[in-house]
Amino acid sequence: MMFLSDNAAAVHPNVWEAMRAADAADSPYDGDVPSQRLDAAFSELFGRECAAIWVATGTAANCLALATMVQPHGGVVCHREAHIEVDEGGAPGFYLHGAKLLLAEGEGAKLTPATIRAAIDPIRDDVHQVQPHAISVTQASEYGRCYRPQEIAAIGALAKERALGFHVDGARFANAVAFLDCSPAEAIGSADALSFGCIKNGAMSAEAVVFFDPAAADIARYRRKRAGHLQSKGRFLAAQVLAMLEGDLWLDNARAANAAAGEIAGACGDRLLHPVEANELFVRLTPAEREALRAQDFGFYDWGADAARFVTAWNSDPADAAALARAISGL
Amino acid sequence: MMFLSDNAAAVHPNVWEAMRAADAADSPYDGDVPSQRLDAAFSELFGRECAAIWVATGTAANCLALATMVQPHGGVVCHREAHIEVDEGGAPGFYLHGAKLLLAEGEGAKLTPATIRAAIDPIRDDVHQVQPHAISVTQASEYGRCYRPQEIAAIGALAKERALGFHVDGARFANAVAFLDCSPAEAIGSADALSFGCIKNGAMSAEAVVFFDPAAADIARYRRKRAGHLQSKGRFLAAQVLAMLEGDLWLDNARAANAAAGEIAGACGDRLLHPVEANELFVRLTPAEREALRAQDFGFYDWGADAARFVTAWNSDPADAAALARAISGL
Amino acid sequence: MMFLSDNAAAVHPNVWEAMRAADAADSPYDGDVPSQRLDAAFSELFGRECAAIWVATGTAANCLALATMVQPHGGVVCHREAHIEVDEGGAPGFYLHGAKLLLAEGEGAKLTPATIRAAIDPIRDDVHQVQPHAISVTQASEYGRCYRPQEIAAIGALAKERALGFHVDGARFANAVAFLDCSPAEAIGSADALSFGCIKNGAMSAEAVVFFDPAAADIARYRRKRAGHLQSKGRFLAAQVLAMLEGDLWLDNARAANAAAGEIAGACGDRLLHPVEANELFVRLTPAEREALRAQDFGFYDWGADAARFVTAWNSDPADAAALARAISGL
Amino acid sequence: MMFLSDNAAAVHPNVWEAMRAADAADSPYDGDVPSQRLDAAFSELFGRECAAIWVATGTAANCLALATMVQPHGGVVCHREAHIEVDEGGAPGFYLHGAKLLLAEGEGAKLTPATIRAAIDPIRDDVHQVQPHAISVTQASEYGRCYRPQEIAAIGALAKERALGFHVDGARFANAVAFLDCSPAEAIGSADALSFGCIKNGAMSAEAVVFFDPAAADIARYRRKRAGHLQSKGRFLAAQVLAMLEGDLWLDNARAANAAAGEIAGACGDRLLHPVEANELFVRLTPAEREALRAQDFGFYDWGADAARFVTAWNSDPADAAALARAISGL
Repeated sequence: MMFLSDNAAAVHPNVWEAMRAADAADSPYDGDVPSQRLDAAFSELFGRECAAIWVATGTAANCLALATMVQPHGGVVCHREAHIEVDEGGAPGFYLHGAKLLLAEGEGAKLTPATIRAAIDPIRDDVHQVQPHAISVTQASEYGRCYRPQEIAAIGALAKERALGFHVDGARFANAVAFLDCSPAEAIGSADALSFGCIKNGAMSAEAVVFFDPAAADIARYRRKRAGHLQSKGRFLAAQVLAMLEGDLWLDNARAANAAAGEIAGACGDRLLHPVEANELFVRLTPAEREALRAQDFGFYDWGADAARFVTAWNSDPADAAALARAISGL
Repeated sequence: MMFLSDNAAAVHPNVWEAMRAADAADSPYDGDVPSQRLDAAFSELFGRECAAIWVATGTAANCLALATMVQPHGGVVCHREAHIEVDEGGAPGFYLHGAKLLLAEGEGAKLTPATIRAAIDPIRDDVHQVQPHAISVTQASEYGRCYRPQEIAAIGALAKERALGFHVDGARFANAVAFLDCSPAEAIGSADALSFGCIKNGAMSAEAVVFFDPAAADIARYRRKRAGHLQSKGRFLAAQVLAMLEGDLWLDNARAANAAAGEIAGACGDRLLHPVEANELFVRLTPAEREALRAQDFGFYDWGADAARFVTAWNSDPADAAALARAISGL
Repeated sequence: MMFLSDNAAAVHPNVWEAMRAADAADSPYDGDVPSQRLDAAFSELFGRECAAIWVATGTAANCLALATMVQPHGGVVCHREAHIEVDEGGAPGFYLHGAKLLLAEGEGAKLTPATIRAAIDPIRDDVHQVQPHAISVTQASEYGRCYRPQEIAAIGALAKERALGFHVDGARFANAVAFLDCSPAEAIGSADALSFGCIKNGAMSAEAVVFFDPAAADIARYRRKRAGHLQSKGRFLAAQVLAMLEGDLWLDNARAANAAAGEIAGACGDRLLHPVEANELFVRLTPAEREALRAQDFGFYDWGADAARFVTAWNSDPADAAALARAISGL
Repeated sequence: MMFLSDNAAAVHPNVWEAMRAADAADSPYDGDVPSQRLDAAFSELFGRECAAIWVATGTAANCLALATMVQPHGGVVCHREAHIEVDEGGAPGFYLHGAKLLLAEGEGAKLTPATIRAAIDPIRDDVHQVQPHAISVTQASEYGRCYRPQEIAAIGALAKERALGFHVDGARFANAVAFLDCSPAEAIGSADALSFGCIKNGAMSAEAVVFFDPAAADIARYRRKRAGHLQSKGRFLAAQVLAMLEGDLWLDNARAANAAAGEIAGACGDRLLHPVEANELFVRLTPAEREALRAQDFGFYDWGADAARFVTAWNSDPADAAALARAISGL
């Protein structure tokens, strides 16, 4: 009964099916039929013109998006615990050619206009200090917290006011939209680009980067090739993304994961370090308690000395979630 | 009847099967069982200790390999028509942080010790000129020509003599080994790293980079993550590579492609611009002749004004190859 | 009697004097009075608004200029023998973050619209090939040849037509303008930026980069700091540049160097490999002849097996030039 | 009466004299006589073999030194308030090709083995997090605090234990050694490279980078050229550095600056935010007090809302220092 992460879960049957259907040779790279359908599919989803490209990882998605907004001598405002800062092996430094991450604070790994200002207002407007060129937020955040539409709108407004690019890392965007119960467009506000995560949500090896400025997408296409991310059988990636969108599979899968998380959360009471909004739980548990759970065959990561992280996935068995809930209640 | 390229061909059934078998959740990234088997599988194949990592494209494979040999202020000797120079969108400049490609000549897009020396001996040994740090050759070359074991050994010896790294781009390594009928080890000589191509040969989205120096592989693992190429469901890539190695599928597939190319070559006579050794044919054909072939439903690329390129694949239908041979004979 | 290079010649007395006059403490970096005068001085020189920054070397000047025009995934068209390609130790690869130099041909190391087109027209307009973002020419060229106003205008027109940036490397711009006897503005046409050389022409350690787009200068100021080129006692660099402009010292110095070169050229007849327009001579001389000249205490570099390069400087003694002329005549 | 900074002070007469003496043409770049003397001069100063290169700024010195120790995918441990983090416009990101600064704490902007460990021990030893490759300390620190020999030795020992490079930013190294009254060697311990500052201490435009590993110096020479920092009239930079070393001018100048700072410090009592060890004073002063001092014609920078920074220089007039001391006493 695995609650280690959603990032290695099995692939959804619909995704498999779409991949098999794409087997027949088609144009290489992104000249194939499924790849050519991405722009329209995301334009429909977001209710406005956009351009979308597939890419194999969230790290590449984030970095390709940011590279269209940030010059090498600039910086990206992000949360101190953002994935791009903590867990991407320095990829932003690579893709942005040495640009700097400018760290901001915020509860639940969420930025606010106030914490962003606190990070950038002290930067002297001279050449000795790295100037911000963009803001990046994570929806849902590293602690599974979701930006409400008005929160994301306020950050977008600040970005506009300061002439900064605005990127949303949506590795778990589906879980956020499922929780917020709003439109995808409302969940990103005036973002210039979104990393639209699929892999944690039932795909195998395809994320999408959605650009709301077609010129940015053009640049990203060159950068994708230059980063060795333009696969010759790209149709298999496009097929995965389209399968996720088809019939709102992306939302159904996220709702299932969120429901499992909610089931477990119900048993955690004030053990919870963060309110559970998406599919991650950060739960105060002593070493002995964690040992007890592991003895019952539950898999999860320690989170510091006194807590654990549980992550549900699209295919988490409700019975497993219920079992975990009972086990925690029984501690 | 498609002879456009092998790079978008269908995926071999064994590869599909191995991918399906890998569906059950396993450790993320490359902690899974199939990924952990790669080192041993390639050590056996090459008869010496090596370390291997998967990656999604040949471009990434080449660049990650070179990045272990070349400092940012150095250069890579390669053929003027090498893929890394001509067709990778500047990826080497990105991955090597501005290092330079130092272009050399050679018939059939093959380097020789003499052409390498001709390229590097005039470089003044001072800080004003970019010094070579590595040599990269393509086996089989961009014109489908194969380095004989003694040829590759001679280049390896030169690399050692000059203290240069030595990389083999093996996007079509299987076709080369199938043609040379030698051991894989003989086909790369003293190379420090090999891009072992699978995608053109029946895989979907996995190449391997094989390092004969474990320290280099360690660096490459960091660089792979930093380049956004460490997929969380990496087991699906490892499974593809292992399926290609299993029972020598990689060689069987290459032999089939080579055989189809040979069948067509037999009909081309002195139309051939290059001897056909692997699975590519460069054939002198007037515009009218090309039109005639296309009217018979053959697909291929023009190669300049007076020639065409045909590429066979692991699944080229022998009947199609025979039909093309007849059509060319009949021109 | 040294004709090795102008790049290590003594510093002109006026430059020394200006530097001494700048000794008293002033604002650091480029907040000092002399630095603040640069924009106006160059705006007057070129008869239109421009922004100018000092920098310590021609390599940094060229690269900072180009970095405002070329994205990391793009390329710069330059001559195969351009300084940025041959003699800057890979600096463009560093400053442009891996962008590529796209090499073009042209007699006397001068590009023409035709040779530029020949270099870029074959580049497929797709992500697999590096697209040109800028053109860089050298005025005077590496062989001391000067672009006539109409020639430079034609290249500028091509740059505009193709939406490319246009940079002029003017390491010996003074010698070119002295030869062309035209206005500085005519000698650069519609260039977006000029590396205005001073060091080879009597300064110690200051070149200027002149930007005709103020937004580009703003970027270059950040990039200059980021490259460690923003000196805290920048007033000493500004003073050098202003001293060169004052009373047209830059042109007087260049005329003296050109005159010395002309004196020598008169004795060379058909030994000249290139017409002498600026202050460099490329002279066919056998090894024995070169030995004979060196025996008479003339210093110069060999230029391949059968020629020599002589360079005159602002302070070349006319008597030395006459002596060299006589010695060559007497061979 | 200027106490703004030492970074724009006048040039010492001995330095001027040495520069004038270097005027006669010599070999370009660093082939000249003064440049060739640097290695020996610093080897004598430090009592062991070393190799030294000149460079025009402290930023370039720091970055070239670090580039020999840190791979692009690695990180540099430095203090949160280190110059490389705060005031170099992102130069480390540029020179290190995206490597990351890993921030550590410490009183007075000084690191300790404990604060370094606190910064790096939590870094997971996997490819998802940037691993430390080097430690950089500033001697004297950004608050004018000096590492005692045993303190620097302890950090050096930690660097060795963890196989990290060890760099000392010595922009005000002279002031530190003058304060510590130890040998230069003791002041850097087992550092691999030192940025030996001259500009703040009476030079015009030359710092030295001293490498205790000759292989590192070789790499740095290539990187210096590649960064556009190899000046063709490099003899003028070498002459400055040698003039500073000659007769221990560097120490005499630093002692004068330190003495002036000490004079002022004596009047500051518990207004001092940091003990005064070198030539910088951070003094608690209300806005009104600062206004009063400025009305008496003292120049200095505000340091936050309630303090001011005063910096003395090699040429601070003792009378001015005494006057400032009196003025502060009289507040």
